[in-house]
Amino acid sequence: MAGKPNPIRFGILGCAEIARKVCRAIALSPNATVVAVGSRSLDKAVRFIAANGLPPATRAHGSYDAVLDDPEVDAVHVPLPTSLHLRWAVAAAERGKHVLLEKPTALCAADLDVILDACESRGVQFMDTTMWMHHPRTAWMRELLSDPDRFGQLRTIHSVVTFYGDSDFLQNDIRVKPDLDGLGALGNAGWYCIRSILWAADYQLPKTATAHHGPATNQAGVNLSCGATLLWDDGKVANFHCSFLARLTMELSVAGTRGTLHLSDFVIPLEETHAKFRFATDSGFAALQTGWQPLPGEHDVSTELPQEALMIQEFSSLAGSIRDSSCKPDQKWPTIARKTQLVLDAVKASIEKGFEPVSIAG
Amino acid sequence: MAGKPNPIRFGILGCAEIARKVCRAIALSPNATVVAVGSRSLDKAVRFIAANGLPPATRAHGSYDAVLDDPEVDAVHVPLPTSLHLRWAVAAAERGKHVLLEKPTALCAADLDVILDACESRGVQFMDTTMWMHHPRTAWMRELLSDPDRFGQLRTIHSVVTFYGDSDFLQNDIRVKPDLDGLGALGNAGWYCIRSILWAADYQLPKTATAHHGPATNQAGVNLSCGATLLWDDGKVANFHCSFLARLTMELSVAGTRGTLHLSDFVIPLEETHAKFRFATDSGFAALQTGWQPLPGEHDVSTELPQEALMIQEFSSLAGSIRDSSCKPDQKWPTIARKTQLVLDAVKASIEKGFEPVSIAG
Repeated sequence: MAGKPNPIRFGILGCAEIARKVCRAIALSPNATVVAVGSRSLDKAVRFIAANGLPPATRAHGSYDAVLDDPEVDAVHVPLPTSLHLRWAVAAAERGKHVLLEKPTALCAADLDVILDACESRGVQFMDTTMWMHHPRTAWMRELLSDPDRFGQLRTIHSVVTFYGDSDFLQNDIRVKPDLDGLGALGNAGWYCIRSILWAADYQLPKTATAHHGPATNQAGVNLSCGATLLWDDGKVANFHCSFLARLTMELSVAGTRGTLHLSDFVIPLEETHAKFRFATDSGFAALQTGWQPLPGEHDVSTELPQEALMIQEFSSLAGSIRDSSCKPDQKWPTIARKTQLVLDAVKASIEKGFEPVSIAG
Repeated sequence: MAGKPNPIRFGILGCAEIARKVCRAIALSPNATVVAVGSRSLDKAVRFIAANGLPPATRAHGSYDAVLDDPEVDAVHVPLPTSLHLRWAVAAAERGKHVLLEKPTALCAADLDVILDACESRGVQFMDTTMWMHHPRTAWMRELLSDPDRFGQLRTIHSVVTFYGDSDFLQNDIRVKPDLDGLGALGNAGWYCIRSILWAADYQLPKTATAHHGPATNQAGVNLSCGATLLWDDGKVANFHCSFLARLTMELSVAGTRGTLHLSDFVIPLEETHAKFRFATDSGFAALQTGWQPLPGEHDVSTELPQEALMIQEFSSLAGSIRDSSCKPDQKWPTIARKTQLVLDAVKASIEKGFEPVSIAG
């Protein structure tokens, strides 16, 4: 086990592209290791193990069930298409495996609730793979937003996440197939937008979501681009836009009564070893409005491990506490996944209802 | 005339705070000078001339009419409250003065049309004071956006402009008084948002504007915060948000099929002597999505004159060509002011109609 003492032993369900990134993250994490890979094709699992430099002892399984039946698997990473999450995340939880689930976590909050109930009743840890939550930059920014002397009261949040899909992507990718990832851009890029908004609002759910006019869909009806306005009772307002139709953008802008935060790479930092953001307190203008005073500060946060390895480390630490010390699962992760999915549901409903406001009830 | 050969001679209508910035810009501009200041109070005009270091020969007038009757005034800067623009901009044009008009240019596009008709029929130059249009950064960014090999087709625009008004501002400032600047935050911060969107779209008018739910108003019904989604027939989408309730933010983010542009100080650059923006072409991810490739480029544009002086220089150059060489007024400036006001009208109408889409017809 590569010299790691008592690591959390991962099984991977499926050989998706994102699983390659997670395997590397597990290798980098000091408290986790991959012990099994399952695919509907045994050959594919064997090839995945070889191609990703996994230990030769890693077991290849010819089915997802075989991974879940493997007694030496503590936890699973589930990178399957969203429509398969309900079945396989529940199956994993029921067999006592901790669940690291790709986002979007489910096709709707009701489905996610079934997954979370299964995790709860078996006492296994749940976490979604929103990797940027685990970057030290995120913790630092959160501290600034929480400081009334530096940020004041939160007023507005703007989040934009776009990826550019070429015509092949827009026709054939899993993420635009109604039977695989039926939530399309809203479930994928929009997940990050919604999470960033909830994160900035310290996970206070908005009262309503109202989708913006003009969403784009493909011929199968899968969302390719949309946006929404989220409103809170105290006047806070958030807007987001997500799309598969515009070049890579990951902007997050948060403004309070005293402070402002901005970063342009919040989902995936430009570089792996460090990440920047800009923060200002009490910014105003120089005399005659000829410039800003004070200038916003540029912050640069180093990290020894990439954010996805920090995610694995955190997840494995929680799973290890349950396995080795009879601790209870940390409720933070299922709670924020559920809130993200609730807002996502409301935006989808608002699109379906002709852009009417939809209430969000926790 | 401070050694300037044959400058455009400005009269200032009113002693507003913004007039101080414009007086400095006129002093910095190589082809303009202030020769007269008018106020409803002669004393106030005298004091303004002294306080702003204007030449002692500058004439103080006790009325706006006296400035317009001054035969040695070529052009006027009109920093009066918006509700007075129609009367005084028309009066200035009718007396053959070129008109540099503060934004928002009018309470509605129909009023602006009366002003523009007056300018047209007297052959005087019209320009609004959207200063950032004149920064060399703006020209450079426009060149990049217009290059299909670097930017591709325009897909999305996001513009956010907020200023933080304290309780005194929100009660007493001209910009929140229904009889003075009845358009509130939409007319002020929103003007910049709408102009930036039109600029990015190369002044192609959107087909519809749909206001976002949740605008804020003060007790007098003046807008303090709002936003809207603008849509074009080809699928382009723009969102903006403007507010007097959140700390200073001036974000502009533009994404095409190949390129992305971002800057955080588009209205007023952080510093007077240079201004930055970020631009990327064909950004995607490094292997395993561990970073971006290529990284966006950071550009830094120096300017010898601040953007407001470049505005005065451009306006005065056009006015001088008319005065000295019998040229015709440049139609670009009235045209884009009118388009900005048309979109502003549509957003206002959409708010009034309960957030329904409102068509925009040029």
